[in-house]
Formats: sequence, C-alpha cells, structure tokens
Amino acid sequence: MDKINSVTIVGGTHGNEYSGIYLLRKWQKSSAAIQREGLTVDTLFANTSAFENNKRYLDCDLNRQFTHERLNDRTLSNYEESRAKVINAQIGPKGAAKSDFIIDLHNTTSNMGPSLILLQSDAFNVKMAAYVKQHMPEAVIIMEDQIPMDEQPYLCSITKQGVIVEVGPQPQSVIRQDVLEWMETLTTHILDYLELYNADKLPALPASVEVYEYTETLTLPMDEHGERIGMVHRNVQDQDFKALNPGDPIIALFDGGEICWEGDYVAYPHFINEAAYYDNNLAMSLAKKRVLEVP
Amino acid sequence: MDKINSVTIVGGTHGNEYSGIYLLRKWQKSSAAIQREGLTVDTLFANTSAFENNKRYLDCDLNRQFTHERLNDRTLSNYEESRAKVINAQIGPKGAAKSDFIIDLHNTTSNMGPSLILLQSDAFNVKMAAYVKQHMPEAVIIMEDQIPMDEQPYLCSITKQGVIVEVGPQPQSVIRQDVLEWMETLTTHILDYLELYNADKLPALPASVEVYEYTETLTLPMDEHGERIGMVHRNVQDQDFKALNPGDPIIALFDGGEICWEGDYVAYPHFINEAAYYDNNLAMSLAKKRVLEVP
Repeated sequence: MDKINSVTIVGGTHGNEYSGIYLLRKWQKSSAAIQREGLTVDTLFANTSAFENNKRYLDCDLNRQFTHERLNDRTLSNYEESRAKVINAQIGPKGAAKSDFIIDLHNTTSNMGPSLILLQSDAFNVKMAAYVKQHMPEAVIIMEDQIPMDEQPYLCSITKQGVIVEVGPQPQSVIRQDVLEWMETLTTHILDYLELYNADKLPALPASVEVYEYTETLTLPMDEHGERIGMVHRNVQDQDFKALNPGDPIIALFDGGEICWEGDYVAYPHFINEAAYYDNNLAMSLAKKRVLEVP
Repeated sequence: MDKINSVTIVGGTHGNEYSGIYLLRKWQKSSAAIQREGLTVDTLFANTSAFENNKRYLDCDLNRQFTHERLNDRTLSNYEESRAKVINAQIGPKGAAKSDFIIDLHNTTSNMGPSLILLQSDAFNVKMAAYVKQHMPEAVIIMEDQIPMDEQPYLCSITKQGVIVEVGPQPQSVIRQDVLEWMETLTTHILDYLELYNADKLPALPASVEVYEYTETLTLPMDEHGERIGMVHRNVQDQDFKALNPGDPIIALFDGGEICWEGDYVAYPHFINEAAYYDNNLAMSLAKKRVLEVP
C-alpha cells in the first residue's frame, strides 16, 4: 500500500457527540499533539449547525450520506445532504480523494470504552489493530467489513483508508474527562502508527489480534400500533463486548415478560441501548469474536 | 395538615426524560399499581410536543414556569409558557389547586440513583423522607427549602404539597431498566405513604433522617469569549453525594490545569455533569448533609 501523506481528523459529524468537537478545539489552538513526521494532519468540524442546535443532526444522519449514489444525487439537498457534498469536495472526492486517511471521532452512550471501528480487514488495518491493542490494551477493535469500503455510507469512506473512533459511555451533549482522554489516546496511537508505517519502522507486532466482527442488529419490540413494548434487559445493559449465549435474556417487556437471544452463536453485543439508535428502534448490534493473523 | 385526597403523577415535564413517560404509559394501561385506598390518582403527560421532538423543551424549560408571576403574565406565550398555563388551569390554580399532591417524574444523566427532592421541611415532608428511607434505603433525600414552596418555579409547586422524583444516571432519550424500576419503586413508596398518612396508620418511623440540603451551584469555567475552558474533574464524575473536601479538585481545564473546591465546608455534589445544565453552563449542585429529627 502507498504511504499515507495527509490525514484529516474529523470531529462533530454528530453535533451532540462532544469529545471530538472539544478535541478539535484543543488541537486547533495547539496542533503539536497531532503533528507527525512525514504527515500533513488537518482537522475538520463536520456538522457545525447540528452542534449549534445541540442535536445529532438537523435533517438526516450525516454519517450515512457518503455513498457514491447519494453524493452524486443533486436532488438530495437538505442540510446534511449538502454538507456531505461540501465535505466530499473539500477532502475527497470519494474514490480519488485529496486526503489519504480520515479519523472520524464519535461518542456513544453505550459502555463501549475506547473502540476502533475498521471497515476493511486488509494488512494495513490488521497491523493497525495489532499496534493499537499493543499500546492500548483496553481498546476494542470492531470489524465492519461486510461490504467494500467504497460502498460504505460513512464519512471516513471518502478516503481509501479511514477509521471511526467510537468512545463511550457518554450521554449526548456531555463531556466526560475519562472519555475525552480515551479518545485522545486512541487517536494518538493511530497517528503514531501512520508515522511508523510510512517510515517502515513498525515495532514487532503480536502474531494475532482479536476483533469483534459485526453480524447483525437487534430491534426493540413493538406492538401492532408501532409503540415500543420493551427495553434492553438489565442483564445486558452496560455489558458491551460480554458474551451473550443462546437463551440469555436480551429484552425486558414492560408487561413483565422477557425476550431471549435465539441465535445459534455466542454473540458479543455492542452499541447496547445507544440513544441515537432509538430513531430506528434498534436495541443493540451483535458481533462474533474473531482472531486475525497479523501479516 | 389536611388529608391528601387527589394526587397527580406527572411525566414528561422534560421531553427527553423517558422513565416517567414510559411509566405513565404503563399506568394508563393498567392503573392498579398506583391506586390507593382513599386517594384519587391521575396521570398527566406535561410536555407532549417536546417528547415528540425528542428534546428537553421546545422554547424554554417547562419546569421553571410555575411562579405566580409567570403564570399570570399573559405576554408569556411560547409553547412551554402556554403549556404551563394550561396545566395550571387543569390541576391548579397554584395556591388553590384542585389537586392536593404532585409527583413530578424526572431523569438525570448524573449518577444520583433514586432521589427524592423536597421543597419544604415541614413535618409532613420529613415523615415522608423517613418513610421512604425506611422502605428504600438506597433512596437519597434532597432538600431545596431556601424559599417558600409557593414561590418555587417548579411544576410540583402548583399544589400545597408536591415532590420531584429524580432518577439517574440515564442518558437523555434512553430507557434503562434499572432506572425505570427505581423510579417506579420510589413512586410506589410515596403513594403508600400518602395512603398511610391519610389513614393515620404510619408505621413507627426512625427518630431522624439524613437529607442533603442544597447550598449552591458551581459553573463551568469560561474564557473571555464565553467559550468553556474546562470540564468536570474525573475525581468528581459519577461521585454524586460523596464528600468533597476543601482543596479537592472539581474542574479539569483543557490546558491541563485544575480548579479546586475553595468553599469552607464539606460539600456533597449532585447533578454532577448533568447534560441539561450545559445550557446554563453549570457543572454541579452542592449540598450540606443535614440530619432532621422526625416529628
């Protein structure tokens, strides 16, 4: 793979996820912490109006607008649809981008700790995962490589390589010091990796790295009128990345009943009870644990 | 004091505090859990439009509109100002209310557990505090009796007696099962107390009860441009109702410095890093511990 020359650190893709927004402010005042030998590192505040309105988004989720189809559809013209086109022009265009690498900073209300979401499992990314885990064992690697990077709708798919840094638990519109520091530390390790990768000076890496491979998303149960009739079960709440066995309860019904996990595999829930996912009535994402050999 | 004949349980005074809203739905389907001998118990969904918009409020905080001055000012006509007048007409009017007792259900993003906020320290309330602690030792009693109940701006001040049930930690726009159950249990004990009080059948109560008496509110530090320059210190985060000694750090500055508690008393912070209080740039409330004799 070619060297990474230019990096864009994106904050505020969702306007009420404050850690990235505050880190951007900090780095815009003093960029020493994000500068690396051989790299041009810029910052981009993605959804400024959503932040001013203290909302995730004004019209639609900015982080789902970056497919070729949506970027090229001139009839899509609301705030986030427009913002996506502007960002794509600024650091893209997708498929032939000026920027080489995007680090997109996000928060979750779920108890996911410092998570790194990767969208492809190529050698470059697997080595990055191994490097990050080597230097920050508390970090968690999520692999979402079901479809090619170029077909992903996420902002970080503008560039050929890019990642999502996802840190929680943090309520929307709040800054927690622990979460802020996790995000800063994780971002720092990614930048270190890029510098060392470019210079061909990576340290000896472990032979394998454990990742959580996304499998499916569970919804909240509804009645025939579309009203929610249950919530995430207390046994699952806050237990992100803990094993969920077939038969374990996952949903507590308001009438006192419960729904159990009926899959045929040991699942690792994450994004458990994420506030932003209520819009789509989602209860949690599931993953399988997978061990990747480091090339 | 006269008997309590009619009780109004209010949910959704803030549209993104879901526990009360979901409990109301549950009780509207099946009211057995809130019916008590000798009491008429009704429910009221206060800020319906804020809930539909998934926000705390549309125009202003509904739970600050219930002073006589604001209720009587016809020029105050935005959504929440109007909603306050309608609610006051429905279960008030304040000072001569049809309802005798309001239980107003709230959530906080702070780690406050099941908290009961009382606005006056009369015998009726102190006995209630003692009864609640006797049956739910994990409950916390907050006393905000600096000004007379009748001068308070809160919705529950419409009636001569009324309380705020405040339960967290729960992110805005999320339902946690543990928080929902705490709120239901605390509300149930309050209703039990009212029934027993009316019937003069209260059990023997402890001789004293510990409460947290509100003293003051700390703000987040800002620079000369009004931009925040610090956040709640990690040593304080989630430590609601834990002793804060003079000299203890309370704020972490983004530049690496810190601000310490400079008061002359041992303070008990609560509403620590509450999301909704960022609007007013508040970091936390403080209290002193106080032991009240039960009459």
